[in-house]
Parts: sequence; structure tokens; C-alpha cells
Amino acid sequence: MNRELFAAGERLVSPAYVRQGCEARRSHEHLMRLLLEKGKCPEDGWDESTLELFLHELAIMDSNNFLGNCGVGEREGRVASALVARRHYRFIHGIGRSGDISAVQPKAAGSSLLNKITNSLVLDIIKLAGVPTVTSCFVVPMATGMSLTLCFLTLRHRRPKAKYIIWPRIDQKSCFKSMITAGFEPVVIENILEGDELRTDLKAVEAKVQELGPDHVLCVHSTTSCFAPRVPDRLEELAVICANYGIPHIVNNAYGVQSSKCMHLIQQGARVGRVDAFVQSLDKNFMVPVGGAIIAGFNDSFIQEISKMYPGRASASPSLDVLITLLSLGSNGYKKLLKERKEMFSYLSNQLKKLSEAYNERLLHTPHNPISLAMTLKTLDKHCSKAVTQLGSMLFTRQVSGARVVPLGSMQTVSGYTFRGFMSHTNNYPCAYLNAASAIGMKTQDVDLFIKRLDKCLKTVRKEQNKESDVSGVDNNDKTEDVDIEEMALKLDTVRLDTCQDSS
Amino acid sequence: MNRELFAAGERLVSPAYVRQGCEARRSHEHLMRLLLEKGKCPEDGWDESTLELFLHELAIMDSNNFLGNCGVGEREGRVASALVARRHYRFIHGIGRSGDISAVQPKAAGSSLLNKITNSLVLDIIKLAGVPTVTSCFVVPMATGMSLTLCFLTLRHRRPKAKYIIWPRIDQKSCFKSMITAGFEPVVIENILEGDELRTDLKAVEAKVQELGPDHVLCVHSTTSCFAPRVPDRLEELAVICANYGIPHIVNNAYGVQSSKCMHLIQQGARVGRVDAFVQSLDKNFMVPVGGAIIAGFNDSFIQEISKMYPGRASASPSLDVLITLLSLGSNGYKKLLKERKEMFSYLSNQLKKLSEAYNERLLHTPHNPISLAMTLKTLDKHCSKAVTQLGSMLFTRQVSGARVVPLGSMQTVSGYTFRGFMSHTNNYPCAYLNAASAIGMKTQDVDLFIKRLDKCLKTVRKEQNKESDVSGVDNNDKTEDVDIEEMALKLDTVRLDTCQDSS
Amino acid sequence: MNRELFAAGERLVSPAYVRQGCEARRSHEHLMRLLLEKGKCPEDGWDESTLELFLHELAIMDSNNFLGNCGVGEREGRVASALVARRHYRFIHGIGRSGDISAVQPKAAGSSLLNKITNSLVLDIIKLAGVPTVTSCFVVPMATGMSLTLCFLTLRHRRPKAKYIIWPRIDQKSCFKSMITAGFEPVVIENILEGDELRTDLKAVEAKVQELGPDHVLCVHSTTSCFAPRVPDRLEELAVICANYGIPHIVNNAYGVQSSKCMHLIQQGARVGRVDAFVQSLDKNFMVPVGGAIIAGFNDSFIQEISKMYPGRASASPSLDVLITLLSLGSNGYKKLLKERKEMFSYLSNQLKKLSEAYNERLLHTPHNPISLAMTLKTLDKHCSKAVTQLGSMLFTRQVSGARVVPLGSMQTVSGYTFRGFMSHTNNYPCAYLNAASAIGMKTQDVDLFIKRLDKCLKTVRKEQNKESDVSGVDNNDKTEDVDIEEMALKLDTVRLDTCQDSS
Amino acid sequence: MNRELFAAGERLVSPAYVRQGCEARRSHEHLMRLLLEKGKCPEDGWDESTLELFLHELAIMDSNNFLGNCGVGEREGRVASALVARRHYRFIHGIGRSGDISAVQPKAAGSSLLNKITNSLVLDIIKLAGVPTVTSCFVVPMATGMSLTLCFLTLRHRRPKAKYIIWPRIDQKSCFKSMITAGFEPVVIENILEGDELRTDLKAVEAKVQELGPDHVLCVHSTTSCFAPRVPDRLEELAVICANYGIPHIVNNAYGVQSSKCMHLIQQGARVGRVDAFVQSLDKNFMVPVGGAIIAGFNDSFIQEISKMYPGRASASPSLDVLITLLSLGSNGYKKLLKERKEMFSYLSNQLKKLSEAYNERLLHTPHNPISLAMTLKTLDKHCSKAVTQLGSMLFTRQVSGARVVPLGSMQTVSGYTFRGFMSHTNNYPCAYLNAASAIGMKTQDVDLFIKRLDKCLKTVRKEQNKESDVSGVDNNDKTEDVDIEEMALKLDTVRLDTCQDSS
Repeated sequence: MNRELFAAGERLVSPAYVRQGCEARRSHEHLMRLLLEKGKCPEDGWDESTLELFLHELAIMDSNNFLGNCGVGEREGRVASALVARRHYRFIHGIGRSGDISAVQPKAAGSSLLNKITNSLVLDIIKLAGVPTVTSCFVVPMATGMSLTLCFLTLRHRRPKAKYIIWPRIDQKSCFKSMITAGFEPVVIENILEGDELRTDLKAVEAKVQELGPDHVLCVHSTTSCFAPRVPDRLEELAVICANYGIPHIVNNAYGVQSSKCMHLIQQGARVGRVDAFVQSLDKNFMVPVGGAIIAGFNDSFIQEISKMYPGRASASPSLDVLITLLSLGSNGYKKLLKERKEMFSYLSNQLKKLSEAYNERLLHTPHNPISLAMTLKTLDKHCSKAVTQLGSMLFTRQVSGARVVPLGSMQTVSGYTFRGFMSHTNNYPCAYLNAASAIGMKTQDVDLFIKRLDKCLKTVRKEQNKESDVSGVDNNDKTEDVDIEEMALKLDTVRLDTCQDSS
Repeated sequence: MNRELFAAGERLVSPAYVRQGCEARRSHEHLMRLLLEKGKCPEDGWDESTLELFLHELAIMDSNNFLGNCGVGEREGRVASALVARRHYRFIHGIGRSGDISAVQPKAAGSSLLNKITNSLVLDIIKLAGVPTVTSCFVVPMATGMSLTLCFLTLRHRRPKAKYIIWPRIDQKSCFKSMITAGFEPVVIENILEGDELRTDLKAVEAKVQELGPDHVLCVHSTTSCFAPRVPDRLEELAVICANYGIPHIVNNAYGVQSSKCMHLIQQGARVGRVDAFVQSLDKNFMVPVGGAIIAGFNDSFIQEISKMYPGRASASPSLDVLITLLSLGSNGYKKLLKERKEMFSYLSNQLKKLSEAYNERLLHTPHNPISLAMTLKTLDKHCSKAVTQLGSMLFTRQVSGARVVPLGSMQTVSGYTFRGFMSHTNNYPCAYLNAASAIGMKTQDVDLFIKRLDKCLKTVRKEQNKESDVSGVDNNDKTEDVDIEEMALKLDTVRLDTCQDSS
Repeated sequence: MNRELFAAGERLVSPAYVRQGCEARRSHEHLMRLLLEKGKCPEDGWDESTLELFLHELAIMDSNNFLGNCGVGEREGRVASALVARRHYRFIHGIGRSGDISAVQPKAAGSSLLNKITNSLVLDIIKLAGVPTVTSCFVVPMATGMSLTLCFLTLRHRRPKAKYIIWPRIDQKSCFKSMITAGFEPVVIENILEGDELRTDLKAVEAKVQELGPDHVLCVHSTTSCFAPRVPDRLEELAVICANYGIPHIVNNAYGVQSSKCMHLIQQGARVGRVDAFVQSLDKNFMVPVGGAIIAGFNDSFIQEISKMYPGRASASPSLDVLITLLSLGSNGYKKLLKERKEMFSYLSNQLKKLSEAYNERLLHTPHNPISLAMTLKTLDKHCSKAVTQLGSMLFTRQVSGARVVPLGSMQTVSGYTFRGFMSHTNNYPCAYLNAASAIGMKTQDVDLFIKRLDKCLKTVRKEQNKESDVSGVDNNDKTEDVDIEEMALKLDTVRLDTCQDSS
Repeated sequence: MNRELFAAGERLVSPAYVRQGCEARRSHEHLMRLLLEKGKCPEDGWDESTLELFLHELAIMDSNNFLGNCGVGEREGRVASALVARRHYRFIHGIGRSGDISAVQPKAAGSSLLNKITNSLVLDIIKLAGVPTVTSCFVVPMATGMSLTLCFLTLRHRRPKAKYIIWPRIDQKSCFKSMITAGFEPVVIENILEGDELRTDLKAVEAKVQELGPDHVLCVHSTTSCFAPRVPDRLEELAVICANYGIPHIVNNAYGVQSSKCMHLIQQGARVGRVDAFVQSLDKNFMVPVGGAIIAGFNDSFIQEISKMYPGRASASPSLDVLITLLSLGSNGYKKLLKERKEMFSYLSNQLKKLSEAYNERLLHTPHNPISLAMTLKTLDKHCSKAVTQLGSMLFTRQVSGARVVPLGSMQTVSGYTFRGFMSHTNNYPCAYLNAASAIGMKTQDVDLFIKRLDKCLKTVRKEQNKESDVSGVDNNDKTEDVDIEEMALKLDTVRLDTCQDSS
């Protein structure tokens, strides 16, 4: 309400009360002004009332919400369903323009502001999370894999001779596919086993660069966050190699914003060597729905080049989600979540250690992995290789989600490339194991329920094994198939464990 | 509620009334069952109550909504903000898996169903809209340009030698960029002027194929919906050329679903020749927010190949929007919108004809363009070239959105390629003109307001011109810059028309 | 957003676009200002965007939404559930104060404005609907019956000797109970049969006034809207009697706002005689949920006296509903609803006439009743008295709601007073009949479905009757019980009609 | 979804996943079934997903939501505004019927269930909160005052000779008006000063009963929760007197549910003597919007008699609010709130004690009041009587809500009855004071902010006083006016304190 409106209100109720209401409005406006002027995440989260007022204010700046608008174009932001309009807070025009996903739209000043502010907030949070020298970033409404593809496609124009991407192995399909989709040939660098950890083979990387010739290498594509016993790549050293050979360096930081260690690696890489862009998932780091990523970097013009590579407008939905989330949390709320995650990691680690020892297993020693843990499943695997997947299945049907069992010797072909020991990031890891991670938003209750259910499942599996049962009825060729543990587990759930006899 | 619940209810209120409530529930369930079993758009739209019940039922099948779930993975569908959860109806896991955007997610049966049903409904609507032999399609949470890029990237793997895309010129940046981003070289085929219409130069296309060699051509990239005086490409003939030379054919059907003529062209192309995929915008055809597209085709395995090319999960938001919209409208509601659009096109056409004649201008004769119209601005342009952009500016500030003025002789460089006469789809169109379109959802009121405001603006501009004013102060080099009419118009809005003298 | 905010926005996106957004905001504000200044219902309905912005603006003026508020009282507008806060748009403090339901609350300037504006809009609508000289009204969060009670309780203080309320009979329980609850003795004036219509017995009213002595009569309590064949009371004449004897006159105008005839009666009554207050339902006239009424009158101080009689604060929910509804509809929207209702009445009347004649029944001739119609059920009743209630039951279970069958000779005791011929407004109406009404919001589809289903049911009942069936098994004492047709109907639904033999 | 629907789903996505979804649904249903069967508040709160599903399930049982309904009555639950329908979760028919606010509605099985369940939950909570032998209660959509009126109106029919209500004085207008509105004469029993506390004068009560004659006394109307230094009435003794003389006893337990002490008094009263009904506010005890109350008692038939006294249907809105709130909180959540309130009371008490001593004031010793506290304002009052109201004003404008300053000697006339020392519950309390309360939902932050602001205000007032200022310009007649502290305070806010000189 503006002055005139308050004046009109004063004629209806007491001016003194209206004046208080007017003051109250100013305190909301003060928060909005700070946001627009500083472009930083507020320390304390906004309450819903301020947040919705802000979104409403932005939305009415878009032409589809003009009371007197008449539209004679082919895209006028008309919405057929009131439910749909409402769930998007009446932001209909998306973000960006034909030329650039970060560009301002004449028809949609509100959506444009939303987009600018979101990118600004996200940049602020990345700094706060451990990469203080980041200079530029933008939210893109595609998940991590496709965002990596976009980075590679952008680099193509800079490096016309390049055909290869050097990629320290990580067994996650969309990472691999991001390179294939972009039309490049991934050069897989196998990891080295150091203690229990799988780490980057720096010598092999450098040797490969020399072998292929730097000009034929589009970039090095490294990874931070990953499943144990793999640990984040040796980013500093890779960044140095890239700098030395003039090769771009793209980092897949999928769920690494939540870990100060991952962020520190990127910061260090950029300091001592070369990091051209790092890509992170919105949903995995900011607790929003799947579908967005942040592309960030240390060189404005390169990041802008990527944003200009996206042809056409794009969904504002992921930006809106992360904007709402960050304004609700405030930077203090986000820091609190980071802190709690760290604590949960210790807690999960301790609980899993205890449990594994009770079953003559052990927690793999992977100190460089700040998020994911792995517990051996040797005793299970010894008796019957099916028992491992059986355990996965049991956990899944007991509503434990996200736990991964990794049997030995899976083989999988992804886009024509065959991986031995798929899911374990190496051809031959010494033993089968189970993964669990402490991701942002995890609660003590999650850990406790998990440990309790895992205990129960392990007990059941052991009991079955002691019956010296037989598995001859089960097709062991599964191992060489395209393994999807969750799916396989479900198939197996009806196979009784007493069929495990042959492997005893 | 199930039987047990109704029984419990009967103890509290009269069994007869509860029985009626139970019957009432069954009528909602009946609609849902039909949808799940047939996968077709219901004829009559659902009311909000059924729709929300359905979404709720799906959402509780996702693991993030399980009451007893414990999550120990890196992506558990946790949501920090209740506002965000609510606006997504608690669908958090997105769609697809690492391997395939159409794949089923073990953690999210509800989201997976949502995805399958949406694709099925959309397919049904495409058939109904004029392409009855389409066999496969999927919604992708990227706008048209990026979706075209994905198609080109998929074709790359099938045609390793190809470097070129043959593209009958259409002056819309993201179409052009979709090819650049995919890493191909667009081969621009200039249009032929037939009467007032700009049409496909078939001979030039065929000549180019022969010149480059079919194997070096990734595909022909044609367009249906476009701004007059360009008209949809001669799809049948292009499809025949493609078939003859074994070249794939990708059609940009951006906002063509709303026009039976555009759809018929695709159907005919596929019947007599080759159409590999056609891509359409969700927002422009279905009145949903910007951010999604449909990739459709006549060959299941190719469409599936494209869907497998998308690396990783993706936002469910555009799918959810179109699902809500189609279920609300029903196929009858959608047909009604199509019918109304057609009527609005006639109405707009008549009104614009009358107005143009009143100003000694004329409506260009473009019978092959079923959506967009163009009215000459000869008399304006004659006096002062600035007057044309000035008109655009005036319309914009008067809340006419979507009207486009096209001055003569604009030059624009897009990704290194320079287009003469940019925006007019040809190097030298005979005159400046103004575009207006009749898009889905347009109302009589839009047309009336537009005509009224346009009339006013033309009157004003004329009056100013009669003052024989001078424009020497304005920098005429604008013409060679990167022209964005809306932006330029705004810049010019403060430039007084009395500066137009020199061109008189 | 205020100037400062827009200025901040201009630094992020183009000032020209922000300026347009700013202009757009002003057009929303303009509507709000008009409302606050004039206090009239806008002619054209507001769109949701303006409406929600307005509610949001009001809500942030309430202390429970102040960002820096600290509350140390016993009622601070705290809300435990976010769902609840949201559904009330964060208006928590209700309306009124201990002293007066129309009073302004210091803690809640926004809620107070909401209350004032709602009452003002409602007054405007009452004028428009046919009572132009009304001077004062307020929304009270109680349904019609309790609101009448409040009027009677207020009158008690003015007329300490009064014990009786003169009440031309209308068979609707809550009207009767409103007097009992207030502690008065209703003096029932039986209606006179004129043609098919049941009309006010004016002589009996006057005779009763003389008999009891005017001072012992609290008021005359008349009724407009009612079920045919009763028709609205002769309000003019009653108003004159009241004026002559100095007796207050309270009109139950339950669903009469929707009928210009009912409203005209009130206007005329006030013009020629005395109408102290007239009470109308919110839900029945404004298509909002049950729970509110409007108390209106021609004398500010009396209406204010009633509003001061309500002890304590009250729910703002009904006021909010009617505010949202009227702002959405605009006066034009409401007038359109009134017009459509009238048309539906003609349509229903014609259809019912045709149907009744097809079954040798007839539509009762009740030209003074503008809302409700009645069709005889003579032929049914002739065979078997149960058949009438059986018909009611069949309609109910076929999802025809609101149709009422009125058998002969029902007896009912309400609060100790026994009514013969209950439901028919008279001791002995000549025949059984069925009621149907054309209420605001009714659609052609309702009428068509009703006629179709009624036809089917009549057919079935006839067929059963022709089997000369026997009803001896059914307890005929039902007639003397507390009759609730819908309930009875359901009980009977399982009784087969072939038990109707005895009445044949 | 029922079995058929799940089966249809299984054909679209993997049966194993659908099976999990189906299991997940059962866990929601399990909660609903428990609720319907036991009618008790669940221990743990439901999540929003279950809650909304439940409300949705109920709503579709109402005829206005039947897909095939046709309505030909005068009230069909049609809603003009989608916003309104949505905010009521599509419950439109309200609760109750003409005969009884607790009755089941044939047209609205869902709303009827909602009503029954709500009353059942609320009964459970009252037991848990300290009145285990309560047998019956219902939610009524009127605030406490009007609900008390309804109780009195009901008693009238039982006690035709009664004219008086005996009422130990409590200075809260709506309590007093509740009796006036019902048409009875309040007999005010002045309180006795015991130490700092104001307590019930039992002898005066009994003497008054004897003087008036028990048959002429409608009831004793006592109060639990109140502002210090008044404390809850001596309920046990009053209940015994009522039992002895055969007089009904109605307890105003406005915000007493939140205090185990208040609840215990009621329980004891009912055990040793007579308590006919006790009435409590919904908003003050359950953190919902203003507008509802609970009428509860120990005798089913009397409580039912009250519910039958309400003429007509009523708003379901307050019932819906409290249902949502209790299901969200669970009994554990509510208990937690009660516990926190108690802790806050101690905290507030300590902080206020410290502060008062710092200013040479003291916290009144009122151990029997479990909610409200009072701190003397002797030193302020000594200098200038205006200073006390000035303090109130300062607090109000500094967004301290709910703090009440009570000056000496206010006089107020309510409905013709003049109260000396109004607001202080007695004619001459020894000193002016300030009230603060610890109500449910209060946070440490509220206390801290309050103490800080109060400190500041006291400092300012002192400073001003030390200037030995003059107040001669201010009209001291204010004291005898209708005092509303908040209003008065605001008026005074512009009066500078340096006008206080005369009182020095």
C-alpha cells in the first residue's frame, strides 16, 4: 500500500492504528530493499509473509499480470489452469531470452529480477560455503549431467581440434553420459587404491595428456563428491596439470556445496592452478526438487559464454525454488544445516562402525570422503554372492532409501563403454560393501532407523546363510548384465536366501 | 478412504450418508482408473477436487513421502521449505534416471507414474491435433531450442561424418543457436518471395545436399510456425528430399500444435517422406509456464534414443504443469481452445485489414500462415525509418505485448553469422511491416484493445510526421547493431518524432 | 514495492522495464484506493492477483504479523499450524472487540479495515439488489437463526414487558427456534389458502396484537423467501400494522437477496410502514460457506445496538469469504448471477410444468413465490402414502439434493410446540407435493439432470404401484414422529414399494 | 487409490515400486482409521500430507463435491469463488442442522464426520489437560462471550422464575455483556483483597443467594483465568454452594485450558459440588484464529440441550481450524506447548521481578494466578497519573502487544452498570500496575524483547518525570470515561510527558 492507500484507510479505522500498520509494512520493505541493493542472502530467514509479499510484488511486474495488457504475440504468458498459475506465483515467462539464459526479458521485469537476485544469492552462498573467490554463477534448469554437457559444448567452440575428455573414473552414469551426449570421447583414468581409498592417478592423467596432445583434449573432467571408498579427486594437482598444459578444467561438484572439504578443494584448485567451471546440483545441496544446477566459475566471461550457449528461454521453476529456500533459511539457517550435516556424518560413522564390528565387518577407512561411508560385506559375500544384493533388496523394501550395496564383479556397458567392477569405481575392489551417506537435511532419526533396520536385515541374512542354503536356481549371469541394484534387489526380493547353498 | 475407514465413519454418522460419500469417492476413482488404463486425455476436464486427489495419491507413492522412510543416500527428496514442497504437490524426485529421462525411478513410483501418464496424454493430444500416426513422444524440461539441440546431439552418434545442418532461414535466434550449440554448421537456405509470402527454396535445398554430400549433412532442420510473411516450410517436399537422400529431418514445430495446418504438414511429411522428430513448445501450445518442450516422432526407437541421450534426472515441473492443464481442460476443452484460436485469427485478420486500409497500408496476403499476420508500414517508413521502431516502442509502453515492428535493413550477427534484413527472414523484404498473431488463449478483448491502441499510435505518429520533423540527431547506425526491437523501442521512446525531418 | 525498491530494481534490470512494472503496480493500487475511498463494490470483479495483494496488504497491518512484535497478553494471534494461518490469509484476530462486533481493534488494523470494508460492500450490494434506502448493516458470523435471536435479545432491552413474538407460520425449524432460544413465546399465525398459495392472514395478526396488547408483543417476525406453496409474507401490510401499533418488525429474508421481489417487499414495507431489521443468510445469497448472516436496517442506531449486543470478538471468516467473493465478482458479476437465477427459475418452471402434466400432476400456481416451485404428487399419494417419501428417498440416493417431498399429515413437535401438516406451512394442505427451487448459482445442467432423474423415479414408482403392492409391513406411525424427510427417505430406501398394497 | 487403481499403475511402472506406494498409502490410512475408531488425538502429530489427504477424503463425501450432483434446493453448497472453496478445503455446508448444532447433515457426511471427530478430539484434550471426568463437549463457532450467553439462554427454560446471575466481579466487558445479552441481571460480588490477591468473597455469594432466593438465581457465573492480581475464583467452594442450593454453575474458563491449575479447579468443583458447564476460547487455548469456543460439561443431556438451543446451521471454520491444529500437533505436541508455557511463566516472572526491583517497584505476589502477572507502578503514579497511561501508549507504539497498564480510579459504565476502579476487578486497588501474561505459544524472545522495551520505556518516563513537568493541559476527566487503555494510550502518545508538572 502506498501513502494514498494508507490515508484512505485512516478514514475507516483510527489513524494511529493505520500508522502502526504502515510502519509494519516498512519493516517488510526494508528487508526487500536490502536484498535488492546488496544481492546477498539475508542472515536471518524471512518469514512467509515477507517472502510471499516479495514474490507477489515481483510477479505483478510481469506483463502477463498487467491489468490492461493486450497480447498479440505467440507467447504471452497466458495460463489455462489457475492451479498452475498459482503454483508458479504467476511467474509464467520463465527466465532468459533467445540469446542468453541470463538475459533480461522486456515482457517480464519481475521474472528478470527474480533471476538476477537468485543468481546473486546463490553466488553469495557459494562464497560462504568455501569458495570465496568465485566471481560468477547462474542457475540453469537442468540437472547436473546436462549442465556439464552444456559446459563441454561451450568449450568445443574454443577448442575446435579437441576430441577427448580426460576423466578420472567415477561410476555414476550421468557423469559419463554428459561427455558422450556432448559428442566427446571420454578417456577413463582408473583410480589407485591407497589404503581403503580410491584416489586419482595423477601420473596416468599427465601421461594421457602427453599421449593425446593437449590440443586434442577438450578438458579434464574431475569430481569432488562421490561414494566411498572413492574420495574426491586430487583437485589441486589436477588444476596444476591443466594450467601447465593449457587445458580447461571442469569440476563435477554434484553434492559438494554441503561439504566444506569439497569446496576447499575447488578453492585451492583455482588458487594454484586452473578451474574453469564447477557444476553443482540444486536439489542435492539446497533441498529443493530435482531439476536444477548451478554453473559457477572464476572467470566472468567464460561463465557468460556458457549462459549464452543455452538456446532460448528456460524454466524459472528451479530458480524460484532455490530463491524461496534461501530467503526462508537465511544464511544462518543454511550454515546451521551444514553444521548439522557434519555432526550427522560423525554420528553415522560411529554407529556404522559399531554395527560393522558386531558383524565381523569393518567400516572402510576413507578419511578423504566427507559425505559417504562404506562398510564391508565380506562375510556375506563369502557365502553367497547373491546375499549382497539380497541385503540391498531387504533394505529397500523396509523403506531404507539411498543405501547402496556393491557386490564384486559387476560388469556394465554404458553408451558402448564397458566398465568392470561397476559401481565400485575400480575394476577389482577387494571386497563387497555397503554405502551410506550423510547428506544435508539428515536427522538423527534417519541414522537410528537405518542402523536398526540394517541390524535386523543382517541378522536375517546371517540366519538364512547358516542354513547352508542353495542358490542354484538363480541365474548368476545377472552379474554381467546392466546392474541396477535397486531394481535387481527388488527382483530378488522374492528369491529366498536358502537358495544360496552353492557358494558356500 | 478404504472400506475399513468408511466402516469406522459409519459408526459416527449415519451409514446411509457414509454410503453416499463412498459412492461419491468411487466416481472420482472411476475417472482415475480410466486415465491409468487408457492413458488418454479425458474428454471432459476434471474438476479441481479430482485433480488434486489424484496428485495427492501419486505423491504419497514417492519415498520422500513415506511416513516411515529413512534416507541414507545423497538425494532423498528432502525439502527445506514447506512452500516449495507444497507448490510441487510434494513431487520432489523429478523425472527419469541417470540412464534415461523416461525411465522409472525405484524411489519415486508416483513421480514415475506422473511422467508416464503425462507423456501418454500429450501423445493423445498430438494425435487429436492433427498427427494421428505419431507413435512416441516425451516431455522434456527444456525449451524448444535446447530440445532441438538434444535431437542434433543424438543424431551425431548415428552420422559421425556429418558437419552441416541444412536450414531454411527463419529469423529467430534460438533456432539458429540450437545448431551452433550442438556443434554443427548451419547452412542457411534463403527463402523465396512468392507474392507477399516467403517460402522454402526447395531447389536450393536439394542443390546444397548434393553439393555437400548427404553423409556430411546431419539433417534438414525445417520450421512450421513462424512470423508472417514467412510461412511454414514446404514440409512434404522437404520430407521427400530427405527420404531420397537418406538424410534425417527434424521439424521445429514451436507453436504449431495449436494450428491444424501445421500439424497436417507434419502428418503429410511423415506419410510421403521422412520426418524423424518434431519438437514443440509446451508453453506456447498448452498455456503453461515457459520451460518445457515435447519431442515427438514416428519411430519409437529413435525417440527413445533421444530420451536416453539426456544425462541424468530432470525437473518434473513442466510435466506436472501440462498434466494439470490437460486434465483440467479435457480434450474437449483443448479442442475448444483450438477452435476459438482459429476464430480469433479470422477476427484479428479482418480488424487488421480494416485498420490498415484506413491508413493506406495493407494486410500482407499470407494465406499459408495460419497464426501470424503482417500489415505493411510503408507510409511510416517512407518518411522516416525511425518512425517504425518508434511505433513499436509506443505499442510496448501502452501495454501491447507481442506486436513486432520490422524495419527494413536491420543487420544482425548471431554466433558469428551475419543476417541481413534480420527479423524479416530475408535479405530484402519489400517493405517494413508490423506483426500480430492469434495464439491460443487470445480473447476478443485482446484484439479490440490492440486495434484501438494501434489506431491511436498510428494517429500520433502520423501527426508527428506531418510536422515534417527532423531526426538528424538520432544515430542511424542502430540499424547495423544487434537489433532487439523491444529494447530498441524503449530506448527510442524518449526520442521525439519531430527529429524525423531528414527522411522526408 | 515503494520508490526505493523500484530504484533498487532498476539497477538490476533495465529501468524502462522496471518503470513498466511500477506502472502496473499502480493500476492495482488504483483499484484498492477506489475501494477504500468509496466503499463500494467495484463494477468489474478483481482478478486474483489484485485480490491477494490487497488481502496481503491488510494482513501485514495486524500486530501478529509485525516482524518485531512481542506479545505478553492472553491473546496474541499466535497460530500453531501454518496451514491454518495460510487459509485465513494470516488474519487471526477476528473482528470486533468486547464492546461491539463492529468496533476497531487496536491490535489489528488490517482485520478492522477488512471488517469495515466488507460491511460497506455488503450494504452497497443490498442497495443494488433492491433496497436502496437501507442505511446500515453488518456481517455477523452466525447463521440466520442465531442472528434473528440476537435481534430479539436486543429488542428485549427496549421492550421489557414483551413476552410474545407474532409469527406467520413458516415450517422451518430454525426460524421457530430463534424465538424460543431468545426466551420468547411464538404466537403462530396460520396461513390462508388463496388459490394454491398460502398467504399471510393479516386480520389474524392484527387481532392477535389487540388481544395480547401491543406492549406484550416483542415484535412481528415475518418471512420473505420460503418454500412454495407458501409465498413471501404480505410485508407492506404487516409493516403498516407494526407502525400503527408501535411494534417492531423483524424480517427473516433468509435467501431473499437473490430475488428482486423479496427485496422490493422489504423496501416497500420500510417505505409505508415499519421494518426494524431484516436478516439474510450469507451462504444462501452469496455462494459462500455456511456460517454468516447480514443484519440490516433503516435506522443506524438500532443496527448499532444489535452489533453492540454481541458480547466479545467474533470470527472474521464469513466476512473474509464474502469480501473475496464480492471483489471477485464485482457488482456486474453479482447482477449477472441474479439475472441467470431468474432465467433458471423460468426454465425450471417450464420443465417441471411439462413433466408434471405428463404424469397427470400439475405445477401449483404460486406466482408470488419467486424462488420455489411445487408440483403435486396426488396420484402417488392416492395409492400409498409411503410412495411420497419413497420418491424423496429415491431422488436423494440418485444425487438429487434439495428436492423436498411433502407428504400429507406429518406431525412434528418443535421445542414443545406441535405442528400439524409440518413442512407444508399449514395444517391441511390439499395434496402432497414436491418442491424444487431455483437458487443463485443454479445451472441449466442442474435443471436438466433433475428433470431426467425425477422422470425416471416417477416412472419407477408408478411401475411399482401398478403391481398393487402391499405396505402393511411398514410402520405408519412415522407420520407422527419428528419427520425429517431426508432421513426418513433414507430409512425407507430399502423398503420395497411392493409393500404399498393397503393404500390401493 | 484402491486396488484397481494400483493394478492399473502396475502396468505403467514396475509392480514392485507400485506395491511400495500402496504400502505407503496404508500407513496413512492406518492413522486415519485409528482416529475414526478411537476418536482420540493421536500422540504424534500428523504430517501435512496425511492431514490434507484426510481432509480431502472427508470433503468428497459432501454432496457439493459429488461429481454427478444436481441441486434444486435453496442451499446447495455452491461457491462463487475458487479461492473461498479452496481455503475451506471445499467444506461448504457448515455444521449442524436446524435442530441441533451437533446433528448430522444428510447432504454433508464429510462435514458431519469432521464435526464429530473434532468434538471428540477436543474432549480428549480437555481430559488430558486436567479434567478427566468431563463427559461431553462441542465446538461452537462463537467466541466465549456469546457461548456463555447461549448457556444462560438454555438455563432460562429450566428455571423460568430466575432473573439474576451471581457473578464474582471480573473486569472484562464481554463476560458482563454475556449476561446482559441473555436478558439477565448480573449481581456483582466484589472481590476480597487477600495479600496482593483479589479472591472470591464466598460469604457474600452465599448471602446473596439467600437474599434473592435460589429459585430467582439463574446460576452462579464464575471465572478461572483472569488478569492478576485477581486470581481464579474459589471454584470448589462455589460448586459446593451451588450444589447445596440447587443452583446451576457456569464457569468461564476463557484461557484456562492452558493451565493445569485452572483445569484442576474445574475438576475439583465437579467432584465436590456442581459445575454444569465450562466454556473456553478456542483461539486463546489452541492458537487458532478468533471465533470459536468449547462448551463442555459433566452431564451429557445438559450439554446436548445447549447444542440443541443453537438455532440453525453454523460455520465449520473454527472446528476445521482446531482439527487441523490438533492433528498437526498431536497430544504430545500440545503437551509440549503446555509445558513450555509453564516454563515461560517462571521465566517471565523472574525477569519481571528483577526489572521491577531495579525501578523500586515490585512484582505483586499472586501465587494463585498461573498465567498473569502484575508489577506495581507506584513510583510512576505518584508523580503523575498520566504517566501510567503514557507508559501503556509507549509500549503499544513499540510493538509490545498485550501489556496492560492499570491506572487507579478508572470509572466505566458497561450496559448501564458503573464499575469503579475498572480494569482492576475492585473499586480501589492499592496501586497502579502493569500486567503481563505468559500465554500458550509465548517464546523466550517475546519475554526478552518485552523486558528490554519495558526497561527502555520506564527509563524514558522516569527521565521525563525528573524534569518535573506539567500536565495541566491534559483533560483529567479521561478517568471517568469509558476507558480503553490501548485507545487512550494512543491518544496520549502525542501528549508530551513534560505536561505532568501539576502532579509533582
